[in-house]
Amino acid sequence: MNEDAKMNQVDAMPDPSRRKFLNSAALAGLAGAGLSVGLSACNKDAPAPAAAPAAAPAPAAAAKAVHDSVHLKPGELDTYYGLWSGGHTGDFRVLGLPSGRELHRVPCFVPDALVGWGITNESKAVMGTKPDGSLRYTVGDTHHTHASYKDGNYDGRYAWINDKINSRIARIRLDYLICDKITELPNVQGFHGIFPDKRDPVDPAINYTTRVFCGAEFHTPLPNDGRDVNAPEQYRALFSCVDAESMEVRWQVLIDGNCDLVATSFDGKLAASNQYNTEGGYHYEGMMSAERDACIFFNIARIEQAVKDGKFKTFGASKVPVVDGTKASNADPATALVAYVTVPKNPHGVNASPDGKYFICAGKLSPTATVIELAKVLEWFDGKLDDLDKAIVAEVEIGLGPLHTAFDGRGNAYTTLFLDSQIVKWNVDAAIKFHAGDKNAQYVVDRLDVHYQPGHINASQSETMFADGKWLCVGCKFSKDRFLPVGPLHAETEQLVDISGEKMVLMADHPVRPEPHDFIIFKRELLQPKQVYDINEFPLAVKDPKEAGVFRDGNKVTVKITSLAPAFEPREFKLKVGDEVTIILTNLDKIEDLTHGFAIPKYNVNFICNPQETKSVTFKADKPGVFWCYCTHFCHALHLEMRSRMIVEA
Amino acid sequence: MNEDAKMNQVDAMPDPSRRKFLNSAALAGLAGAGLSVGLSACNKDAPAPAAAPAAAPAPAAAAKAVHDSVHLKPGELDTYYGLWSGGHTGDFRVLGLPSGRELHRVPCFVPDALVGWGITNESKAVMGTKPDGSLRYTVGDTHHTHASYKDGNYDGRYAWINDKINSRIARIRLDYLICDKITELPNVQGFHGIFPDKRDPVDPAINYTTRVFCGAEFHTPLPNDGRDVNAPEQYRALFSCVDAESMEVRWQVLIDGNCDLVATSFDGKLAASNQYNTEGGYHYEGMMSAERDACIFFNIARIEQAVKDGKFKTFGASKVPVVDGTKASNADPATALVAYVTVPKNPHGVNASPDGKYFICAGKLSPTATVIELAKVLEWFDGKLDDLDKAIVAEVEIGLGPLHTAFDGRGNAYTTLFLDSQIVKWNVDAAIKFHAGDKNAQYVVDRLDVHYQPGHINASQSETMFADGKWLCVGCKFSKDRFLPVGPLHAETEQLVDISGEKMVLMADHPVRPEPHDFIIFKRELLQPKQVYDINEFPLAVKDPKEAGVFRDGNKVTVKITSLAPAFEPREFKLKVGDEVTIILTNLDKIEDLTHGFAIPKYNVNFICNPQETKSVTFKADKPGVFWCYCTHFCHALHLEMRSRMIVEA
Repeated sequence: MNEDAKMNQVDAMPDPSRRKFLNSAALAGLAGAGLSVGLSACNKDAPAPAAAPAAAPAPAAAAKAVHDSVHLKPGELDTYYGLWSGGHTGDFRVLGLPSGRELHRVPCFVPDALVGWGITNESKAVMGTKPDGSLRYTVGDTHHTHASYKDGNYDGRYAWINDKINSRIARIRLDYLICDKITELPNVQGFHGIFPDKRDPVDPAINYTTRVFCGAEFHTPLPNDGRDVNAPEQYRALFSCVDAESMEVRWQVLIDGNCDLVATSFDGKLAASNQYNTEGGYHYEGMMSAERDACIFFNIARIEQAVKDGKFKTFGASKVPVVDGTKASNADPATALVAYVTVPKNPHGVNASPDGKYFICAGKLSPTATVIELAKVLEWFDGKLDDLDKAIVAEVEIGLGPLHTAFDGRGNAYTTLFLDSQIVKWNVDAAIKFHAGDKNAQYVVDRLDVHYQPGHINASQSETMFADGKWLCVGCKFSKDRFLPVGPLHAETEQLVDISGEKMVLMADHPVRPEPHDFIIFKRELLQPKQVYDINEFPLAVKDPKEAGVFRDGNKVTVKITSLAPAFEPREFKLKVGDEVTIILTNLDKIEDLTHGFAIPKYNVNFICNPQETKSVTFKADKPGVFWCYCTHFCHALHLEMRSRMIVEA
Repeated sequence: MNEDAKMNQVDAMPDPSRRKFLNSAALAGLAGAGLSVGLSACNKDAPAPAAAPAAAPAPAAAAKAVHDSVHLKPGELDTYYGLWSGGHTGDFRVLGLPSGRELHRVPCFVPDALVGWGITNESKAVMGTKPDGSLRYTVGDTHHTHASYKDGNYDGRYAWINDKINSRIARIRLDYLICDKITELPNVQGFHGIFPDKRDPVDPAINYTTRVFCGAEFHTPLPNDGRDVNAPEQYRALFSCVDAESMEVRWQVLIDGNCDLVATSFDGKLAASNQYNTEGGYHYEGMMSAERDACIFFNIARIEQAVKDGKFKTFGASKVPVVDGTKASNADPATALVAYVTVPKNPHGVNASPDGKYFICAGKLSPTATVIELAKVLEWFDGKLDDLDKAIVAEVEIGLGPLHTAFDGRGNAYTTLFLDSQIVKWNVDAAIKFHAGDKNAQYVVDRLDVHYQPGHINASQSETMFADGKWLCVGCKFSKDRFLPVGPLHAETEQLVDISGEKMVLMADHPVRPEPHDFIIFKRELLQPKQVYDINEFPLAVKDPKEAGVFRDGNKVTVKITSLAPAFEPREFKLKVGDEVTIILTNLDKIEDLTHGFAIPKYNVNFICNPQETKSVTFKADKPGVFWCYCTHFCHALHLEMRSRMIVEA
C-alpha cells in the first residue's frame, strides 16, 4: 500500500489484536496455503493507530432521536419494507425496518410445512414434480432478490430470487406475497447473481422491467450429459435472460469465467456480472492465480438483434438460443455482444450507483474497489474508446476483503470489508479524483466495525434513482458472541446502521436464521399487499357450503369442503380403502387474518387456507379407520372443536 | 354475572365497540349457532365503564428503566432463554428475552432445508422412514414444549415437544440444541398436551424428571383399524407416559373425554389433564352441550402398581400396557387410578401454581377460572374427602374466553381472555376467600388489553418453584393491524409484558411465524450449550484429510470427505452412473461458528456440518456429468472457491 492510500484510512485499519481475533475463522487455512498476495497488502504496513474498540460504541447523543425510532413502541409500524433472501433455508423473507422484525416468509424452492407448500397440488405444480408426483427438489439456496422497476423505482409488482443449487429462478407476486412461478435454467449450474432490467434498451415507452438477468457461476461441459467431464478447459458457463412476465428463458450467452453478481443500468442498455475464475481453474489455487479477473458487460440490444438474426446455437434438449459471448469472439467493438473489463482479483459484487453513472466492483482478494463508468463502456461498443479498461475511472484501496457496495444518494459508497469486519464509507467522486492523480483527495469518509465478517450490504432505496441515505443493513456471516449461545449453529447478524449523518452509527443487532445473502430495502408506500384473496382467482373454489360433499367416480373421489369458523362442511365424509382422493378446501371466511388449517392425521396432509383461498391435495386412502381432520390455525373460541371426521372403510 | 363478581372487574370489561371489533373474527358464526350460554354471561350486563383504549398506552414513566432494558444495545445479551413451539411450522424455537429475538430453530418433526434435516441419513433415522427410504411424515404441528426438572427448577438436560398431527413426541438435547429422538405414540390421535414429571412419586432420591406425560385429544376406535368407525360412542382416547431417557412408552391409560393440556405436581404424585368433550360428541354442538367437563387426575404410583400387577390390556400391534381409567371403572377412591374433577365448560388449559398447591383450569366457554387444591385430590384418593369436587377451592369469574394461566411467584395468576383480548391478573388467595364467601375479597388485580385474541401465556420461571415475576409473554393469535401488511397470511404477535410492578405494562410486540402455542421462559444461567461438537460423538467421523477418498465395493461407493476452510478433501471424485453412493462429511474446523455446507446440484443434496460434526447422505448416481459440490454456508474469503468436483461417468 502506498503512503497516499494510507492517508485515506479514516480511523485507520483495525488494531492487530482485533484482526487476529476476527480472522481466526475467516482466514483459517489461508496463510498456510500461501495466499498472501492481495490479502497481506495492508497487513504488511507498519502498525496502524488503534481503531475503535471491537465492542460497539454506544450511539452518540446526536443520534438519540433516530435511535429511539429503531425500537418501535407497541403497535407502531415500520417505515420500510425489506425483501431478504433466506440462503440455504431456501426461502424469501419480508422484514420490517428499522425494527428488523421478520414479518413473513414466502416459501418458494423448498417445502414449507406451515403453508402446506410442497403438499398441495397447486404448490407442487409451481415447484415441479417427478413422474411419480413427488417433488423434484426439496433443497434450495437463495442468494439474491430484486424487485421490478418502473421509472427508476420499485413498482410493487414482482420480486425474483435465485436457487443456486438447482439453477432455478422464482417469481414472487408482491400483491399477495406468494411465489407463482419457478423456472429452471437449462444448461446452467451454480446460478448465482440476478437482476431485473430497469427499462428497455430500445423502446423508450417501456420504462419498466421486462427482463431478468441471471449469472451462472459454475462452468461445466455443455451440455452436461457425461461428455468432456475430464476436460475442464472445455467447461463454460451461460448468462441467461428470463422474460419477466412469461418466466420463459429468452436467450443465453456463452461466456468465459464464473459469474458472481449481476447489475443493470438505468438506461436499459447494459447488464454486467463480476467474474472470478477467469482462469478456468478447478481447484481454488487455480481460481485465484491471475491478478485480475473481469466485469463482463452485456450489450442487450446487440444480443437480441443477434438472436433475431439467427446467430445462435442451442445445447442439448434446450431450445433456448445461445449467442457466443466468449472473449475470443468479442474482441472487435464493432460487433462485440459483450465486453470484459478487467478488475482485480476474484472480485465479489458489482453494484450500480443510483446516479446511473457507475458500476462498482469490490476486489475481495484485492483491497480495492473499481469504479467503471458506463458511458465509457458504451463508447467502447461505439468504437470511440480505444482501450476498454479506460472505462475504469477509479481503482482505490479501501481495506481487506471488500465484497459488496451500497449507496446513500449523496455520492457516497459503503463497502463491506469481510476480513477487516468493517464497513468503509467512501466518496465516489473523491476516489475518481484520487485515481486521476489528486493525491489530496480524501475518499475514505468513515469506517465502522461490524460483528463479524460482513458479506452483503444494502441501504434504503440504494439500488433505485431514489436512494435516501437513511438506513444501512449489513449481513454479517459470523455472530460468535453477539447472542446467547444456542449450540454449534449460530444465527447470522443483520446489523442496522444509521447513515443519515456524516458518521455511521451502529443501531441494532438482528439475529437471523442462516443464511441471508442479498436484500433490498424500500419505503413502505411502494408496496400495497392485499390481505384477503379474491375467490375468483381459484378455478376450483367451492363457493357455498351447499356445494360441499363427496363426489365419486369409480375409485376417484373428490371431497369438496368449505371452512367457515368454527366448522368445516361436511362435518364427516366416508371413503373406501383404495380410493384416490382429492380434497378441495375453500376458506369462506372473509375477515382479514382469519386463516384456517386442515390436517389429516397419519395421512401426511396439512396446509393452511387464507381468507377466500382455495387449495387441494390428492392422496390414496390406504389406511382404514377414523381420522379427525382438524383446523391447525387458531381461528375461533371453538377452534379445538373445529373438525371433520374422515371415515375410511376397510 | 352477579354484582359481587362485577366488583372484581378492575378497569371493567372492554367497551362494547372494542369487543365488537375484536370478536368480528373470533366469534364469527358463533352467535348464529346459538352458543350464547357461557359466552354471553358478561356481555348481557349493563354497559361497563370505558376500558383502556384499544391502542396500547405508552409505558408509564415508572416503567422507563425496565423499558430501556427490553431493547438491547448492540452486542448486549439477553437475560432469559425462551423455548417456543413453532405450531404447524413443525419446529422448536429458541428465543432470547426480553429482546424477543429468535436465536435458533431446532428441526424435529419436519424437514429443514438449511440443516439438511430430512436429507441426511442421521436425521432420517430420527424422523422415521417408509420402506422405500422416503420420510414417513413431512408435516407436524407442535404445541407444547417443556424442559426437564431437577429440584423444582430446569436442569438444562432435555426439552420435549409434541406433534399433534401424527402423535409424535420429540426430545431436544439442550447441550447442543438438537433433536435426538422421536417416538410415535401407539393408538393415539391428536396428541396435544405434554408435561414432564418433576420428581418420582415413590422414590425420594429421584428429585428430577424421569417421565413425560402426553394427553390425547381425539377419541377413535381402539385399535383404529377400520372397526367401529360408525359407532362414535365407542371411541376412546389414551393418556400416555413416556420414559424420559429411553423415549419408550411405559404405559397408557384408557380414558373418557378429550385431553387438552397436561400439568404435573411438584411432589411427583399427580399428573392432570383438562378435558373438553366429556360428552363424546362428534360435532361441535355435541362437544359443548354439557355445562361442566373435567380435569382428570392421574395417580401415578397406583397406575404403575397396576401395570406391575398385570392389570392391563393392549390394543392392536402395540405392546404398551393400557390400564383402565374410564369414569365408570374409577368411582371407588380406594382403588381408583384416576379422578375426574368437574370444571366448566370446555376448559382450555391447566397450570400448576409455583407454590405446589394448586392446578388452575380456565373455562374457555365459561368466564371462570377453577382452582383445584392438590392436597384435597390426594385426600380423595385416600378416602378422606367424600366429594371429589370439594377439591375445588375457587371458581371465579374473570372475563370472556379464559384460556391459559401463568404465575409471578407472589401469589398472582395471569390468565388470557381470548374473547376480551385481555390478560387478567388475579390473586389466587383472594379468589379462594371470595369463593369461600368473602364477597369483599378483591381477587382481580389488573387488566391489560393485548392485540389480539391471546392464547398461551407464560411468565419467567412460572412453572418452576422459582417463579420470579419479571416478564410475561402472551401469544396473540391475531395480529391484524400491528405490523406492516404482508398479504393474507399474518404473523402472530408475541407480546412482552413487564409484570414486576402492581400494574402490567405492555413493552413490545414481536411478530412470529405462525403459529407458536406454548413456551417456557427461564434464566440464562440454567442453560450452558456447547458451541463445538465432540468429534467422538460420531461413529462415522473422518478424522483426518488423509482418510478421505473414494471406497468402492461393487456399485456401492463410499466417499469420505473432510472440510477445512477453504477446501474440501478430496477436491474431485469419480463415480459411475448406477452407483449407490454414500457421502460422509466431517467438518474438521474447530473454530466456533465455522460451519460449512455441502450441496450437490441436481442431486437434491444439501446439508450443513457444524464444527467437528459428521453427517452422511445416500443417493443413486443416476445422472452423468460434472457436478460442482459447493460450500453453502459462508465460511471464508475463499468460500465461493470452496468446491469439490463430482464427476459421474456415463
